[in-house]
Amino acid sequence: MEKRVYNFSPGPAVLPLPALQEAQRDLLALPGAGMSILEISHRSSTFGKIIEAAEANLRKLLSIPEDYHVLFLQGGAQLQFAMAPMNILRNSGKTADYIICGTWGNTAIKQAKTQGPIRVAWDGKETNYNRMPSNSELDLNPDAAYVHFTSNETIQGIQFQTEPAVGIIPLLCDASSDFLHKKVPVEKYGILYACAQKNLGPAGVTVVIIRKDLVERSCEDLPSMLSYRVMAESKSLYNTPPCFGVYMVKLVTDWIMSEVGDLDKMYERNKKKAQLLYDVIDASEGFYDGHAERASRSVMNVTFRLPDPELEKPFLAEAAERGLMELKGHRSVGGFRASIYNAMPVEGVELLAEVMKSFCKKNRK
Amino acid sequence: MEKRVYNFSPGPAVLPLPALQEAQRDLLALPGAGMSILEISHRSSTFGKIIEAAEANLRKLLSIPEDYHVLFLQGGAQLQFAMAPMNILRNSGKTADYIICGTWGNTAIKQAKTQGPIRVAWDGKETNYNRMPSNSELDLNPDAAYVHFTSNETIQGIQFQTEPAVGIIPLLCDASSDFLHKKVPVEKYGILYACAQKNLGPAGVTVVIIRKDLVERSCEDLPSMLSYRVMAESKSLYNTPPCFGVYMVKLVTDWIMSEVGDLDKMYERNKKKAQLLYDVIDASEGFYDGHAERASRSVMNVTFRLPDPELEKPFLAEAAERGLMELKGHRSVGGFRASIYNAMPVEGVELLAEVMKSFCKKNRK
Repeated sequence: MEKRVYNFSPGPAVLPLPALQEAQRDLLALPGAGMSILEISHRSSTFGKIIEAAEANLRKLLSIPEDYHVLFLQGGAQLQFAMAPMNILRNSGKTADYIICGTWGNTAIKQAKTQGPIRVAWDGKETNYNRMPSNSELDLNPDAAYVHFTSNETIQGIQFQTEPAVGIIPLLCDASSDFLHKKVPVEKYGILYACAQKNLGPAGVTVVIIRKDLVERSCEDLPSMLSYRVMAESKSLYNTPPCFGVYMVKLVTDWIMSEVGDLDKMYERNKKKAQLLYDVIDASEGFYDGHAERASRSVMNVTFRLPDPELEKPFLAEAAERGLMELKGHRSVGGFRASIYNAMPVEGVELLAEVMKSFCKKNRK
Repeated sequence: MEKRVYNFSPGPAVLPLPALQEAQRDLLALPGAGMSILEISHRSSTFGKIIEAAEANLRKLLSIPEDYHVLFLQGGAQLQFAMAPMNILRNSGKTADYIICGTWGNTAIKQAKTQGPIRVAWDGKETNYNRMPSNSELDLNPDAAYVHFTSNETIQGIQFQTEPAVGIIPLLCDASSDFLHKKVPVEKYGILYACAQKNLGPAGVTVVIIRKDLVERSCEDLPSMLSYRVMAESKSLYNTPPCFGVYMVKLVTDWIMSEVGDLDKMYERNKKKAQLLYDVIDASEGFYDGHAERASRSVMNVTFRLPDPELEKPFLAEAAERGLMELKGHRSVGGFRASIYNAMPVEGVELLAEVMKSFCKKNRK
């Protein structure tokens, strides 16, 4: 078999090996079905059990309350950026508040503007999005249709340590890049959504956890595929769902429950992995320049720069030699980004920390 | 390994075994990449080659002219039902003509009505959608924004033998259930779209072949994910595409080219398979009651009823015993439906013909 590398890509991203192995084993024929998950009818009892198990796993891991739907949709977070305001802002007669902490917050607001009036409750652009705001900094409209935020800014490597306090205004969250990295209090959210390709599965399936009363408020005149109401009433089976993606969500959440335990244990593991890298940054006496302010550091995406851009190619080459791939940062931040989602093995992060230490030793002046 | 059955499901449907085998072989790590197709960045050169190859295969098989884009989108035909009028009907000041020949034509018009004014150019409901119209029966508006039709009605098992003649009005086609079953003259179409899960790959990716001048006419104020212009300008990489689905489209089209040859050979094979079943129906002296009028018979979905509904369960049981699955018809037509897409092996159809003959012999009064 082809040797696997350590994949630090921000998404699509590393998946748990046991989940990949099970998918591989059964790819020609699911046990008892005699056909592939890629071929099986979405109306079959076999697939029915798979989508129910995927939902049950998510409900158990996150203790999702009964008054929330769990939907499996297509189109990624990008489509949710438009679909959320399309359903609950258009025709509300209100405006929506957006907290902008980085690239994805900016993308979310751009898409939302096609659907209705938007207000900015905070924007971190003055410091090139290197921190999350405190609650006291938020300029919230008490009559907003909702408040939207991005729990983890993948590109900047900054993360809310706890969700913003917005009182009774519905809180909408794009959790694409830190979904399931720890247990969050779902009851504080109106909508919590995440594309799969970072912490949950392959690209092509998006999980939307939505409070039932918000579904009731959905606009009436929407195309079925863009209506939360239609998707909730049909239990995500209005049309053919992305069956393989849903299946992978089941396998990945199976892995969390069987190999890790629960989301508290997942979080412990994630914090340890991140600490390995932040410790190297902090001990490097400025050789590694972390982009994020300490209090906003992301447990999922660790961003750092080198003192001299000339050193970037040698660093990437040295990492690649050890099988550490996809570490180049986004041009808006520069330097490097190590995405260390749930499925990144501790060994991969330990190896990266080792390479960073040795590179620093050799190149620090 | 689990034994594979013959899967006559209307979709998701049978896929070519060599494509499944290649996907299985490489599922933990693509050759040269060291990571799974489920984990690889959509911005990587490895994925770039895959999406380019998928497009090149489609262009070659269908001789797609240079003035057409080939897009890989999400949301299935269902989203195209809304997205097409959203892009080129809204703000056109015109109405669109719909030819309604069955369940999917009706669904298409329902979604289109959320976007603009629609006219019915023909509706086959009086005879429960058992035939396609002739050109002379179409009531076309010479100033329509476009004419929409469904090339093959999956549930009814009826198919256009050639596309309707609409002059210079843009012709839009939902070809979800017969895409690539034969070569069609793409230059006669404005938009030709198909979800993958019948003839092309797994659920979750949709191919949209669109004439470039129609993209230019797209509305300006749409969310990016719903804009043909944005998707065309970004070559389907505005956001993370459904990478695995695109990969499977490549493998399935590779299979057509390497194992079948071209779409003319594919069509010969498809016609032979369908003839095997229609011959049994025609020779059964009315025991099998085909739903479709002869001139509209589908090469992809063969629909038929039994003289007595009491015989349905025994027929399904006998078929299942021989490994022939998913033959139950849709309730709106009754009886049975054998979906015999490109990937259904001739042997599967021969076996079904044999079971049908023997069942008829035993049960004909």
